[in-house]
Amino acid sequence: MSHLTEHKLTSETVYTGKIIAVRHDTVRLPDGREATRDVVEHPGAVAVVPVTAAGEVVLVRQYRYPIARALLEVPAGKLDKGERPEDCARRELEEETGYKAGSLEHLATFFTAPGFTDEQMHLYVARDLSQTSQNTDQDEFIDIEYYTAAQIKKLLADKEIIDAKTLVGLLMAGY
Amino acid sequence: MSHLTEHKLTSETVYTGKIIAVRHDTVRLPDGREATRDVVEHPGAVAVVPVTAAGEVVLVRQYRYPIARALLEVPAGKLDKGERPEDCARRELEEETGYKAGSLEHLATFFTAPGFTDEQMHLYVARDLSQTSQNTDQDEFIDIEYYTAAQIKKLLADKEIIDAKTLVGLLMAGY
Repeated sequence: MSHLTEHKLTSETVYTGKIIAVRHDTVRLPDGREATRDVVEHPGAVAVVPVTAAGEVVLVRQYRYPIARALLEVPAGKLDKGERPEDCARRELEEETGYKAGSLEHLATFFTAPGFTDEQMHLYVARDLSQTSQNTDQDEFIDIEYYTAAQIKKLLADKEIIDAKTLVGLLMAGY
Repeated sequence: MSHLTEHKLTSETVYTGKIIAVRHDTVRLPDGREATRDVVEHPGAVAVVPVTAAGEVVLVRQYRYPIARALLEVPAGKLDKGERPEDCARRELEEETGYKAGSLEHLATFFTAPGFTDEQMHLYVARDLSQTSQNTDQDEFIDIEYYTAAQIKKLLADKEIIDAKTLVGLLMAGY
């Protein structure tokens, strides 16, 4: 696909935050002209569809400051530096819901918004759950909710799931 | 969900780019403590699953600079200021693929990465396509590719679709 490739000419880090950093680059376009590209650098993340022995899906409700509302989502979290995605999935699931995954199946790995960020999301389904205890980050406040398969299908049909990774996860898990 | 709400205390715009802007805010957490939140402001976007009379799906292959590779995606694009999502979907479909949508059905509206950006994506399926001509932006280089339903299902099964909106679109369109 070399006829589509854009080549980096210059790169400047314009913001470095706690989680994200922002680069402003100039690139050489396929036709030889120049353009600018802003890139939001992100460490990557995981998301998990946890299914209980009774067939219920464990979802979390969490306030999302960027959109100023609480969203119903699958448990998810950012990769620690050097952390394997599967290890992160097990850790985040247990921290956010208090469930340890007996089995973890990889569903998909995808880019959330490749037009402006390199964030990559690794998605799993977790089964054979055993209960430990919730242990969220200091600045995380999360409600745990349980949904039957029929309720999940109704949430999807009613367009009440409005988070991308949650849509991908529930649809790929067969709901 | 007021027991989950975070309240803005201060807000500073730390970067303003051509498409995105970045804010660094401090917030009051539900337990009264303070935390910081970085927010990537985005104008919002649309994506379209175009299905031809022959039942083929029209996908675009495009270099995504943030991830330094070309991705196979559904046609998509950013909302112009004040533009209605449905108008944007028709415009972007025609610009990127040269197809005018006879019918447009809303599949979903979702947030791509609500942990750090307010980007909202409106997703449609387009049918009754009529051919006009491709007319991409100056800095856009796009290949158009056609896939049968069986090929789409194989791409999904082989985990070769690695773009979130494309996964949501193809799965919600029934593939």
